[in-house]
Amino acid sequence: MAQPVNPPRGMRDFLPADKARREHALGVIRQSYTAQGFDEIETPVMEDAARLHSGLGGDNEKLAFGILRRGLNAEAVAELAHAGDLEALTDLGLRFDLTVPLARFYATHRAALPGVFKSIQIAPVWRAERPQKGRYRQFVQCDIDIIGEQGVIAEIELITSTIAALSALGLTGCAIRINHRAILRGLIGSWGVPEADYERAMITIDKEDKIGVEGVVVELVDLGLLDADRSAAATEDLAGLPDDGWGLLDGETAPRWLDADAYRQLHDIRDAVAAVAPEVPLVFSHNLVRGMGYYTGAIFEIQHPEFGFSLGGGGRYDGMIGRFLGSDVPAVGFSLGFERIVDLVDVPEGDAAGATVLVYDRDVDPATLFRLKTQLVDAGARVRIERRVKNLKPLLERLSEAGYTRFATVTAQTEDVAQLQFRDLA
Amino acid sequence: MAQPVNPPRGMRDFLPADKARREHALGVIRQSYTAQGFDEIETPVMEDAARLHSGLGGDNEKLAFGILRRGLNAEAVAELAHAGDLEALTDLGLRFDLTVPLARFYATHRAALPGVFKSIQIAPVWRAERPQKGRYRQFVQCDIDIIGEQGVIAEIELITSTIAALSALGLTGCAIRINHRAILRGLIGSWGVPEADYERAMITIDKEDKIGVEGVVVELVDLGLLDADRSAAATEDLAGLPDDGWGLLDGETAPRWLDADAYRQLHDIRDAVAAVAPEVPLVFSHNLVRGMGYYTGAIFEIQHPEFGFSLGGGGRYDGMIGRFLGSDVPAVGFSLGFERIVDLVDVPEGDAAGATVLVYDRDVDPATLFRLKTQLVDAGARVRIERRVKNLKPLLERLSEAGYTRFATVTAQTEDVAQLQFRDLA
Repeated sequence: MAQPVNPPRGMRDFLPADKARREHALGVIRQSYTAQGFDEIETPVMEDAARLHSGLGGDNEKLAFGILRRGLNAEAVAELAHAGDLEALTDLGLRFDLTVPLARFYATHRAALPGVFKSIQIAPVWRAERPQKGRYRQFVQCDIDIIGEQGVIAEIELITSTIAALSALGLTGCAIRINHRAILRGLIGSWGVPEADYERAMITIDKEDKIGVEGVVVELVDLGLLDADRSAAATEDLAGLPDDGWGLLDGETAPRWLDADAYRQLHDIRDAVAAVAPEVPLVFSHNLVRGMGYYTGAIFEIQHPEFGFSLGGGGRYDGMIGRFLGSDVPAVGFSLGFERIVDLVDVPEGDAAGATVLVYDRDVDPATLFRLKTQLVDAGARVRIERRVKNLKPLLERLSEAGYTRFATVTAQTEDVAQLQFRDLA
Repeated sequence: MAQPVNPPRGMRDFLPADKARREHALGVIRQSYTAQGFDEIETPVMEDAARLHSGLGGDNEKLAFGILRRGLNAEAVAELAHAGDLEALTDLGLRFDLTVPLARFYATHRAALPGVFKSIQIAPVWRAERPQKGRYRQFVQCDIDIIGEQGVIAEIELITSTIAALSALGLTGCAIRINHRAILRGLIGSWGVPEADYERAMITIDKEDKIGVEGVVVELVDLGLLDADRSAAATEDLAGLPDDGWGLLDGETAPRWLDADAYRQLHDIRDAVAAVAPEVPLVFSHNLVRGMGYYTGAIFEIQHPEFGFSLGGGGRYDGMIGRFLGSDVPAVGFSLGFERIVDLVDVPEGDAAGATVLVYDRDVDPATLFRLKTQLVDAGARVRIERRVKNLKPLLERLSEAGYTRFATVTAQTEDVAQLQFRDLA
């Protein structure tokens, strides 16, 4: 049993410094969203396998970890295998996102929830992905969702609340890209793409960051979604917008593909963000797609000039939350990319104020030692006791790195806190 | 899909009020333990199935949820079934406690950890138990452990830190029962029980709360562990101790079965607890067992006169942490029964100070509304916006119950926070 031991493939342990950073960031996010009037909920990590695989999760459904049904014997397993019914081996699965559980939660508890329900979910999800740098099989998602509000006020509240959370985390310099599925559909339709192919076309347009506008157009043609003689028009539409794209309805510049209602919604969002957080640019990106098929309205994404990846995103997905209810319920969500954000957050030094090491001699009376420790803790300090070793220096250096700022020695003669002589660490 | 939907059997959703109470309690525990010099860590929810089933988890191993191996096809499953190798269907499992993962974590990271490692783990565990009142298939454990310290100073630090956490939670009136496995073994051995049967005898003694001293002795005889002619001696030994049991080494009262070294350790613990928390009784209970087989030294349990169940417990388990390392490592742990404790904790009203509802008219400019909201949040309030409805009363009553304390109305004429007229809710 003495061979090397590791956490399961693609999953991580968190040592104290990392865990402290994570808890600090989660606490800031939780507090910030709560101040904005959202309410935190929690669901179990598992859901019924049938619900997890009901089509709401897109490609992620294939990545769900399945839980083996309890009480199966060899005979039953052989029967299922012969019938080709491997799905029956699992009755439950680990959630791969927080949206499917939210839809199930809302269906379960709708009667007990307010008409407009504003939820926070901060919790781990699991995906059996091929492990690679920056992709984990267990990771935390931070989602806020507003359910039951049709108006753009919901989009505004999600975006301004997310901006407030990023600000509370000390993450400056972010911008929000925004688009609307109706605008995207108008754009694609204007090229003569049949409506049944919109989703497939969006998957190609979503690659623009990687393959460029020309690459997108070539792929659309290759896939048979776009007639070759429309290539020039599509290239021009995708390539750019006049100025910053916010004046398209002024004067005579409105493109033929622009869905005016959707565009006015985006203007309302822009005006509100400008009133609340003028330092955060809201960038109209008429070719922003966002991956999931369930979006129906505005879609948005957090960008930071220093990073080549999005720090979060979301959008309106009116058709989905009601699926388990059998009725239509409007919904908008915004998800922070916690695993990306947490590495950018500084843990304030203030957390370690008064952090004290008490070095005690071997012959100290334990009752006295713990009386002194308790008095210091009650006075607001964080206190770690350490038995004296011959060479104290490496121990104290290590504790200084761990955030302790002072130490004192307790000997058999020490009887009172007033006798302790505190010395700075480091 | 419109049939009733529930979380998986034996698992719970937490609505906002419950979730807030849980997060409050977890925050208090985390902060209290951190102030005592413990460091929080986190491990993935899954461990390799082989490690989960290595014998460290006792009966709980049978309750582990197994994760179906990915990429199995029907043929491979049929083969495993025919070979009777159902264990090979799962390569991973959900943890059923936090002790097995801690042993694995310590083996993985020992080189990066301090010589005496003081860990906090606050995390969910899963057990496929038959669901019943008060028993859940997903529940949170709060464990502190000290690894690498042989001396009784570790037991003292765990017990005094746990007392501090209970006090921070506002849970008064608790007592600690304490015993030592060496004392228990001495007691059982004195009745002529063979050493190989000690564990089985402890399982019976552990039932004393339910079946009484006489029931225990009858069962020991029935199981063939105790000779019938020793019944009277065993009954007398189990029935009581002189006074409070702390003076057994004084005068001539020391029972023949008392392990004096172990008893002196318990005295050291008693003296330190009396110095730090004289209001918390430390009760010597020579027949306290604690269920798990891995305990080797002092064992302890939190009791409260109002409840017929323990609020937590722990003990020394020197043989176990080193199992994955192939070496002996001393360890002591204390686990709080979070699911029992959380129901007893009051969430302080102070959390809701300044909690404000902004009721807005349909024709309000969103930019103005969110500017006002942001100003109130920045000033320290929690703010929830609600569109005006015809009958406001039920809405405001509900928000008052949810902890909001005041409301104001925003109309199309409102331009500044100074114009808001706040009125008390309820």
